[in-house]
Amino acid sequence: MAKKIYVGVDLGGTNVCAGLVDSEGTILARDERPTLARVSAEAPLNQICDTISQAVLNGGMTMADISGIGIGSPGPLDAKRGLIMRAGNLPHWYNFPLVAKVKERLGPYTCVQNDATVSAFGEWWMGAGKGLSDFFVLTLGTGIGGGAVSQGKLLTGFNDNACEFGHTSIDMNGVQCWCGQRGCIESYASANGIVRMANEALTNEHIESSLAEFRTKPDELSSKMIFDAAMAGDKFAEDMFRQAGYYLGCALVNALNILNFEVCAIGGKMARAGDLIFEPARKALYERGFQSYVNQVKIVPAEIPDDAAILGAARLVIEQGEAS
Amino acid sequence: MAKKIYVGVDLGGTNVCAGLVDSEGTILARDERPTLARVSAEAPLNQICDTISQAVLNGGMTMADISGIGIGSPGPLDAKRGLIMRAGNLPHWYNFPLVAKVKERLGPYTCVQNDATVSAFGEWWMGAGKGLSDFFVLTLGTGIGGGAVSQGKLLTGFNDNACEFGHTSIDMNGVQCWCGQRGCIESYASANGIVRMANEALTNEHIESSLAEFRTKPDELSSKMIFDAAMAGDKFAEDMFRQAGYYLGCALVNALNILNFEVCAIGGKMARAGDLIFEPARKALYERGFQSYVNQVKIVPAEIPDDAAILGAARLVIEQGEAS
Repeated sequence: MAKKIYVGVDLGGTNVCAGLVDSEGTILARDERPTLARVSAEAPLNQICDTISQAVLNGGMTMADISGIGIGSPGPLDAKRGLIMRAGNLPHWYNFPLVAKVKERLGPYTCVQNDATVSAFGEWWMGAGKGLSDFFVLTLGTGIGGGAVSQGKLLTGFNDNACEFGHTSIDMNGVQCWCGQRGCIESYASANGIVRMANEALTNEHIESSLAEFRTKPDELSSKMIFDAAMAGDKFAEDMFRQAGYYLGCALVNALNILNFEVCAIGGKMARAGDLIFEPARKALYERGFQSYVNQVKIVPAEIPDDAAILGAARLVIEQGEAS
Repeated sequence: MAKKIYVGVDLGGTNVCAGLVDSEGTILARDERPTLARVSAEAPLNQICDTISQAVLNGGMTMADISGIGIGSPGPLDAKRGLIMRAGNLPHWYNFPLVAKVKERLGPYTCVQNDATVSAFGEWWMGAGKGLSDFFVLTLGTGIGGGAVSQGKLLTGFNDNACEFGHTSIDMNGVQCWCGQRGCIESYASANGIVRMANEALTNEHIESSLAEFRTKPDELSSKMIFDAAMAGDKFAEDMFRQAGYYLGCALVNALNILNFEVCAIGGKMARAGDLIFEPARKALYERGFQSYVNQVKIVPAEIPDDAAILGAARLVIEQGEAS
């Protein structure tokens, strides 16, 4: 019997990428193209269907060979009904029936789940989480996304809003977040968060730093500039990363004490700071976690950030059964 | 074919209780006796086996009719290996092979899990969580215990330390907890926590309250006294409950944003304060949760606090398969 083949789709606001994946997690072929998110509601749908078709073609197959299509999409979404409720980066989609549309056009069984959630699933399947029962993934980007696998199953929650780790709080009286909560870790350890912290410090204190000039132009400061300054040995910039990392570790203790994961993998552009952010995060985790077992828990870099969403979306189809 | 019958055991430091449970969650018979936890390592084991045997007898059955035995035990424990690593209330047990011992003496397939975890499972099966995919349970006692069901599966974590909700923090700079973390919700919203808060307030501020006399004898103040004072209309005592409830709601937002449960059921002696603690908890939850869906989430009283552990322990056997 031939191996079953699936398509995993990584849908972003800028690009959409499809991969042909076999049941062992090998990506056999792929295609990528711009999402055209701002053109119309139909344009990104066309791009999704075209990139899937092209990936299938690139793999030397036809749509009849495909056992199912999984899509990782920005949300909030309703996975059970296959709807994208609203997605910041896809402004023409409102309660958009993505699953029904893709299935209607292409044929195979189709399903959808949050992008951060499927990325965690992929990282668990073929990356840093391989073989673990309980695994947690963070993406430190402009915001902070998260996903978890618990006892080998993807954690989705009752309406697909699980693992909004960026909106767990380290301080109930902290910075007000748009989400309703105060002191969300996203306000400290994301790219936007570190810029916010640096601007706040530059405004309130006399600081010697190559970044001091931004005191008068806070809107021009970026996380990349703080990173570059830290790499060049700027103490203030280094401190900002250390602080972000320590706060991140504190937030991770809360997640650990709820999920009891064995490994947390961290990806995203902020993770590129490496030890500058990983070491203080580990310090907080090991200081503050249950001493009876926290030494068994690891924080590691994500291993397959570029493929995780495609693989996780494909794995989602495998788990949900193939109605092809 | 006859219905399969299971035994669920609720093992506490004071009493141990066994119930005969059918596959539909009806408790057919039960027995309860003192645990004799402080006598020796063998004494509580004897009590467990005796109470199981008696419950079976009370149900008019023999051990051969039993498809499996599930035990909810204090921890930390290692469910996979069936060991109780250490349990505060059972001082003679250290890496105690509870599962092997019970199976050896009685015969049927036996398994164990944390008491708070199996209680959550029982409350989900037959109580406030009936029919829900994602459900969370808190027990506000001397400390705070928690348990969760996610997509219909019990959340255990990689080494059975999931849902230590009492040790999630609302303030990374808050009160130092024995666990390593600061600002654990257990330091505010448990019975011990509310006493701590009241003593702190009575010491630091001039407060008019029927509890003011405890300023000079803080060790004599109990959560029951604060509760009674609140019921008698003492504003300070009411405020303590309101504060505990609001803090609890803040901690619940963190748990919600990770687990995305639909309902949180709260039991334990602190929950007897009813609206005095539930209303401020709801206020915090609805103020601070994701506005896009938090109105779909409910905080309710636990419905079957007395039976939850027995039912959950029995359900655990059903899920794990019966090797009888």
